[in-house]
Amino acid sequence: MSNIEALPLLEPEAPESAVPCCPPLTERPLTADEAEKTARMFKALGDPVRLRLFSLVASHEGGEACVCDISDVGVSQPTVSHHLKKLKEAGLLTSERRGTWVYYRVEPSVVAAMGQMLGTLG
Amino acid sequence: MSNIEALPLLEPEAPESAVPCCPPLTERPLTADEAEKTARMFKALGDPVRLRLFSLVASHEGGEACVCDISDVGVSQPTVSHHLKKLKEAGLLTSERRGTWVYYRVEPSVVAAMGQMLGTLG
Repeated sequence: MSNIEALPLLEPEAPESAVPCCPPLTERPLTADEAEKTARMFKALGDPVRLRLFSLVASHEGGEACVCDISDVGVSQPTVSHHLKKLKEAGLLTSERRGTWVYYRVEPSVVAAMGQMLGTLG
Repeated sequence: MSNIEALPLLEPEAPESAVPCCPPLTERPLTADEAEKTARMFKALGDPVRLRLFSLVASHEGGEACVCDISDVGVSQPTVSHHLKKLKEAGLLTSERRGTWVYYRVEPSVVAAMGQMLGTLG
């Protein structure tokens, strides 16, 4: 049988609105729209636990981590899951389910864009 | 008369706790203390109006701006002042009073450290 239908390709998981938008902050003032979009990403890192979890994922072996890899941040596993979801919603992490666990990985393009916005100010 | 006493030197205006602390996020997980310190800076940029004001200061002629230079962000001058103060408290801006106005300027070392933390992830 050869009637296997082509499945539509899934889009990458980062929400469209999280696509990096903005020039270095020294170049010109951000528009209201750009600021709205970008502030969401900074806000996601503006919580100590979330920032720590983000660094845990970013520095974990293979560049990815699941809740099962994270134990010593002083919050419960459901809270860890909640924060990882928030980071994903902000476009900073992508996720992939494999078996029991959801694995999170840093979305490099988004994070690089944030770094670039700040990097020229140093 | 030569009994002019030496005045103690004033410390730079950025609060001590805002001094950049942390390695690139891919290197190792942040400690709780580091995350606490750094999240404050990200949080300060996590508001659209504040982020826009920050970009206005960063991109303004001469690298500094006062409230008198800022008119088109859709919030009142007291609100602008409030947000600039918050950015200063987070260590992202320094300020200097000259005559009637307080001039704000980006604190390059702090912002560069934030960029560096993110920059290696791209």
